[in-house]
Amino acid sequence: MITIREIIKARERINDFVHETPILRSSRINKICGCNIFFKCENLQRTGSFKFRGAVNAVGMLLPEKFEKGVVTHSSGNFAQALALSAKLFNIPAYIVMPENSSKVKIDAVREYGGKISFCTSNLVSRETKCNELIVQTGAEFIHPYNDYRIIAGQGTCAYEFLNQNREFTDVIIAPVGGGGLLSGTALATKSILNRIKVIGAEPERADDAFRSFHSGYIIPQTNPQTIADGLLTSLGDKTFDMIKEYVDDIALCTEAQIIFAMQLIFENLKLVVEPSGAVPLAVIINNPKLFDNKNVGIILSGGNVDITQFKWK
Amino acid sequence: MITIREIIKARERINDFVHETPILRSSRINKICGCNIFFKCENLQRTGSFKFRGAVNAVGMLLPEKFEKGVVTHSSGNFAQALALSAKLFNIPAYIVMPENSSKVKIDAVREYGGKISFCTSNLVSRETKCNELIVQTGAEFIHPYNDYRIIAGQGTCAYEFLNQNREFTDVIIAPVGGGGLLSGTALATKSILNRIKVIGAEPERADDAFRSFHSGYIIPQTNPQTIADGLLTSLGDKTFDMIKEYVDDIALCTEAQIIFAMQLIFENLKLVVEPSGAVPLAVIINNPKLFDNKNVGIILSGGNVDITQFKWK
Repeated sequence: MITIREIIKARERINDFVHETPILRSSRINKICGCNIFFKCENLQRTGSFKFRGAVNAVGMLLPEKFEKGVVTHSSGNFAQALALSAKLFNIPAYIVMPENSSKVKIDAVREYGGKISFCTSNLVSRETKCNELIVQTGAEFIHPYNDYRIIAGQGTCAYEFLNQNREFTDVIIAPVGGGGLLSGTALATKSILNRIKVIGAEPERADDAFRSFHSGYIIPQTNPQTIADGLLTSLGDKTFDMIKEYVDDIALCTEAQIIFAMQLIFENLKLVVEPSGAVPLAVIINNPKLFDNKNVGIILSGGNVDITQFKWK
Repeated sequence: MITIREIIKARERINDFVHETPILRSSRINKICGCNIFFKCENLQRTGSFKFRGAVNAVGMLLPEKFEKGVVTHSSGNFAQALALSAKLFNIPAYIVMPENSSKVKIDAVREYGGKISFCTSNLVSRETKCNELIVQTGAEFIHPYNDYRIIAGQGTCAYEFLNQNREFTDVIIAPVGGGGLLSGTALATKSILNRIKVIGAEPERADDAFRSFHSGYIIPQTNPQTIADGLLTSLGDKTFDMIKEYVDDIALCTEAQIIFAMQLIFENLKLVVEPSGAVPLAVIINNPKLFDNKNVGIILSGGNVDITQFKWK
């Protein structure tokens, strides 16, 4: 397992590439939620999500003999864009395996960052077969979207930066959990810097595999998640799960309606565009008011890549 | 007329109350527009717009004998919220005259900040009569939303701060123009700090009174503006117009479709919620590509108070 040293090294490695994202607050949201919230705006990170931190760290750590062959991954979401831009900045190829039913917006975004897309049918076997083909053909290095210590260390730089910008949220920090890259990095950074801060993972009720895994002690894979939080559909990996068991205090849930409501609160009061997955921590506060009553809470707004035409507002 | 000294004093006076708003950039927007844009995010200012700067400066400058009697203004928009919060922070009453057909969202926002609302019918005579009644009844001081040097100096702190955060946008700075408070303050600050930066006012074609006034040399009042940029419906005042004539280089126009497109670009790429008026400077760049070709441009994103249900996206 990695330690805070790897996060600090990642921070130095990626410092010239990433934005130091701002922390925003809203007195109206605080009033509605009954606590004092600090939002770390990773939706304003390059490529529109925290995923860029891990991706650029992993690319920056490639061994010289691997370097020019490039990188390969499978992702239909934010990691695809993040890895494509990271590779572009280092002037190496990025091979991105995407399901053929990916949205045009996402495909265009990966292309815009210079990613070389290979399409596969939308299932695990097809995806892995395609990745392996590309590895053999190109010699590129496979970078897993979350179950990789280089990625976890990169994602951990977000909480590290957050805590160095502002130490007022001394009670709790909440991050969304899908595959667990962000949550495990957040937990390691937080517990290493100020151990008494509680670290909570936020998950939709309708994709509650991390919640169930955390409470049972072994990985219960995601089977048929039905949530608008499309960044949180994946299951935990063995590396992220080990770190979550070690450093995370709890995982809490929220409903779909609470996610929509949280997005709307963020939109109207923080004037920020946030994707459903990024609104899940605020939705968790709304669902568990007693847990956060009067607390100082740090939230990682993980991303803002949302297709505006996709959502209706109540 | 005021000088940069009044802006510097305003800056000191309001420093503890206002947010130092961040500057954001988007390589994709730069590519689309053919220039290098720095966005000063006043949509992230308290009350959701730059108007708070001027309002809190004016309240902070009240004479002791006037102080506890409070302030009065007429506004259906961002200045109403800005003055209500400013008065609340100083613990004095704010009397806000609003047209009875104001949207519920705006009325609620003013109430939330503690403003005492008086309704009037939606015309100039009724609005001024109501204001005068309140002044007589309460002894409160009238604060004009823009044609007041205290307000202009406060709005000027935005460009002052912008230039002190980042001097890379050395070619042009663009601010929207309605009544001219923001534009005149921006122009004074900019020309005083770095005279060679061009200052351009941005206005919708369908509310082009400032454009016509600027080019004719006398104030041509707004008659029947039909634009979604609802913050830019007012006419210039004598004080703001004098400063605009003195310090502004040009006023440029844009279409309604360009405003919508600019809002969408900002939403999708900067992940920011911006109101139509705040998108007008970017729309002006889109309408006048040759004017800004390859230039370094600073834009003031003036506000983010938009009712999400109100707009359809193409």
